[in-house]
Amino acid sequence: MAGIAEVARLAGVSQATASRALTGRGYVSAATRTRVIEAATALQYVASSTAASLVTGRMQNIGVIVPTIGRWFFSEVLEGIHEALLEQRYDLSLYDAEPETAARDTIFAQLLARKRFDGLIAAGIEPEHRELDRLLSFGKPVVTIGSPEAEVSGITIDNRDLTRRATEHLLELGHERIVLLGGHPGGRETSFGDQERVRGYTDTMRSAGLGAEARHIPSTVSMPGGYAAAAQVLGDSRVRPTAIVGICDEVAIGAIIAARRMGIMVPADLSVVGIDDHENAEMFSLTTLAQRPREQGHAAVALLMRHISESDAPPERIFEPATLIVRSSTAPISREHSAVIAGISPRR
Amino acid sequence: MAGIAEVARLAGVSQATASRALTGRGYVSAATRTRVIEAATALQYVASSTAASLVTGRMQNIGVIVPTIGRWFFSEVLEGIHEALLEQRYDLSLYDAEPETAARDTIFAQLLARKRFDGLIAAGIEPEHRELDRLLSFGKPVVTIGSPEAEVSGITIDNRDLTRRATEHLLELGHERIVLLGGHPGGRETSFGDQERVRGYTDTMRSAGLGAEARHIPSTVSMPGGYAAAAQVLGDSRVRPTAIVGICDEVAIGAIIAARRMGIMVPADLSVVGIDDHENAEMFSLTTLAQRPREQGHAAVALLMRHISESDAPPERIFEPATLIVRSSTAPISREHSAVIAGISPRR
Repeated sequence: MAGIAEVARLAGVSQATASRALTGRGYVSAATRTRVIEAATALQYVASSTAASLVTGRMQNIGVIVPTIGRWFFSEVLEGIHEALLEQRYDLSLYDAEPETAARDTIFAQLLARKRFDGLIAAGIEPEHRELDRLLSFGKPVVTIGSPEAEVSGITIDNRDLTRRATEHLLELGHERIVLLGGHPGGRETSFGDQERVRGYTDTMRSAGLGAEARHIPSTVSMPGGYAAAAQVLGDSRVRPTAIVGICDEVAIGAIIAARRMGIMVPADLSVVGIDDHENAEMFSLTTLAQRPREQGHAAVALLMRHISESDAPPERIFEPATLIVRSSTAPISREHSAVIAGISPRR
Repeated sequence: MAGIAEVARLAGVSQATASRALTGRGYVSAATRTRVIEAATALQYVASSTAASLVTGRMQNIGVIVPTIGRWFFSEVLEGIHEALLEQRYDLSLYDAEPETAARDTIFAQLLARKRFDGLIAAGIEPEHRELDRLLSFGKPVVTIGSPEAEVSGITIDNRDLTRRATEHLLELGHERIVLLGGHPGGRETSFGDQERVRGYTDTMRSAGLGAEARHIPSTVSMPGGYAAAAQVLGDSRVRPTAIVGICDEVAIGAIIAARRMGIMVPADLSVVGIDDHENAEMFSLTTLAQRPREQGHAAVALLMRHISESDAPPERIFEPATLIVRSSTAPISREHSAVIAGISPRR
């Protein structure tokens, strides 16, 4: 089997340069890198990574824990992490750990315990810290995305602030009968930040003197989930909301489709606001709080790499603010609606 | 650090049983497995996997190559593979290798060359065999999903058959002006099977004496991509099709949404058929050729495990037939349409 020396010779560079080109560590010009890669490919050069790992203690592998792959936000985060790790020539071990499942228990108790990684990126860790403590027990750097844990590095998403701003946007447009749609009622929601989102909505309604109006309709977090929940909440015209906050864009889009089917005009009869700026948001003219999950993935990798190379680096939290994008799914409440509500609202 | 002996003692089982429970190889009752896992967790038992790999030559890790994570089909395949690997206590190294990108080159030339896997599952391998040869050169079992390569094991998707059946369904309903919507025009489409899908459609149209009518409108493979392409093709009422085959459900759903916005009734004015049975298909009453990507992922893992344990097992192809699910997005062509077409079709 060819060694690094043969690769370097064929490429006409030093062994150190060949090594830099293949590991991605240190500067090499693009032309040189291409030449080294071609030589390595021609010689079927294979780094003996198992033996190298024993010597250096480095695996050049990162474990990534996500609560699902199918939800847009997490598939984007995952693609962002993958992009950034690839640049560093790191492998990515994927752990799809749906909260409160046997699979998640197996991953935490067994697979991660093999410690085949130089560090971990974890999205959707329970706020009770039991899981985080377990991850920290492996003695490798951990970076989180989501829940704001001051003691570890990570990307903070202020879930409470997301629904607060979405709700305030609707309040400013004159809406009062505002429903929060989507999210799981059980413990699973904590890992997705849904519980925080429910709280952000409820607190904002209460601050506006509308605590009695606050209503959260749980649903599966998907377009069909939002569709079904909206069909239910929009069915009874006597208690129909004039505005909906979707727990994320998938749910909000499902609600828009349900409304259209029922002949309810968006935004004339119903305003809808989402969270994420999903790839489908623009085509539904959805007003939303835009997140940048791909960039969050990049930032998480950068943070983790710093902790891997500097073992005494202090914890660092990066706060990624969301941006309100106003499209045409939200509008001021119509006079007609205000009159209807004044007549039948339980508050008056 | 605790060893397997301590774990076995605490759980009150033999070392062999404890080992079976933790590796997932061989039979252990559910109750015993739970007891062993609890003991291992309590003792923070960590298998020395790096050292073990050197001794056994087994990594207990599988490399998985997908052409994208964001498209529903592949995120489902990935979740299916992950589920099945977790049962075997295997790790999953994720390679998100978009065709014709520098990232894909780096993955094939460098990351995979480290051979940190006992086998590979590859979806979206180019039909020219250059990539497949590269994967086989690592000397580990390879299982493919997608293009039917007789010489390696895998899950065969007959892409040509998918569009043939979708097109025939529309022909049987009396449609002639049928457009194929979606897919990339460049080389990238080959890896996704889009080129085969275009061919299946074109051949079927030709066999029906409608070769001159055959029209493929490329688009990004997503709901917004299908939406934009449909808006274009439906805009000119003189050449408007009476039916659309979406290259996949995302594209077909985008077309339905575009039609609704333009006041074109589905299925009265326009029939639409997709491919996949996406999680959103039912809510759009979409007629589709259902695939079961999650089960394909499970089957790919089972095939790969057989090749890992029996090095001389012959190649085996599993053909997963698609099922036509007729919902209400397709209907017989209306008399009115037939008359209009008779008047202006270039064929008459």
